Amino acid sequence: MNTVKHATADHPIHELIARRWSPYAFADRPVSDEDLRSLFEAARWAASSYNEQPWSYLVARKSDAAAFEQMLSCLVEGNQAWAAAAPVLALGCTSTRFARNNNPNAAAVHDLGLASANLTLEATARGLFVHQMIGIVPARARAVYQIPEDVQPLTALAIGYAADPDNLPEKYQARDLSPRPRKALAQFVFGGAWGTASDLVR
Amino acid sequence: MNTVKHATADHPIHELIARRWSPYAFADRPVSDEDLRSLFEAARWAASSYNEQPWSYLVARKSDAAAFEQMLSCLVEGNQAWAAAAPVLALGCTSTRFARNNNPNAAAVHDLGLASANLTLEATARGLFVHQMIGIVPARARAVYQIPEDVQPLTALAIGYAADPDNLPEKYQARDLSPRPRKALAQFVFGGAWGTASDLVR
Repeated sequence: MNTVKHATADHPIHELIARRWSPYAFADRPVSDEDLRSLFEAARWAASSYNEQPWSYLVARKSDAAAFEQMLSCLVEGNQAWAAAAPVLALGCTSTRFARNNNPNAAAVHDLGLASANLTLEATARGLFVHQMIGIVPARARAVYQIPEDVQPLTALAIGYAADPDNLPEKYQARDLSPRPRKALAQFVFGGAWGTASDLVR
Repeated sequence: MNTVKHATADHPIHELIARRWSPYAFADRPVSDEDLRSLFEAARWAASSYNEQPWSYLVARKSDAAAFEQMLSCLVEGNQAWAAAAPVLALGCTSTRFARNNNPNAAAVHDLGLASANLTLEATARGLFVHQMIGIVPARARAVYQIPEDVQPLTALAIGYAADPDNLPEKYQARDLSPRPRKALAQFVFGGAWGTASDLVR
């Protein structure tokens, strides 16, 4: 049984955006290779500055226990506690310099976000869930995967099917069962000056 | 007449992801306030680290000529050339410190990307297009909109309906008419080491 946490949106939004949330409880059910390929294919078609496509993903499935444990060891302990149950883990990395001229890419981290959002919406369309984390140990990821200096390991993604949170530690259970709070539009959509709500959303 | 640039995907992806692209040619047609509200509502429901929701957007519609010109002046000249035709401009900003403890938020820029990807997919669902730019003049944006020091203006977004690129300068026309090149999955989905394709995508 999945927990349903639809967005309580103030204005109509596409159901894929409304249905997406980040569970702590993952079901003991594998993700097919076909589905995973489509998730990365969705990331592939994200926009990027100068079409640099700076993102890359390292991926580990639980069916390869050694590879999975290795990736799990790159998460901070708090995240290992629940992410160990996910059938798939990925590390989101981004190239901080443009391939063609080695100049710094100011959009590199932003564009990893664009790609991971695409991946996550494709997952939602397939009944899957993605829980992204900033809580990784970058130095460990660099060492384990020989990540080059100009590539930044930034996020981890737990991918799988959501589960009933009953078996989770209490702290995470409460998070999975609580609603999804959000700022009001007037708190982040501004008009003539930062902090002043646009008339659109007043 | 819109230019159609569907992704030539190697694996099935949701049509919203396949249809999205970043036009240089925008039609002289306003975007309704209802549509705009839904775009920002979609951004609102993005995931973020610790649910910080660090993103904010400044928005200007062409119907308010002074406000539109002011925002246009925050783009680099090359982007002003084509973005002036869009009916709506927005600046994407992100708070670089957590509101609750003032600590640096390592996910701030990434999570603006998550929000803007949601916004863009909502636009696609409504027949709209978004062209995101890193080419802004942050110092000018800070001065014009009194953006606080711990908020980073990072991107601009041109929002509207795509148009036939015939009236564009040749350089941009060619871009609108060219296909959407992408790396192969094996170039960015890795297994046991960075740079080594995962068996998933070999």
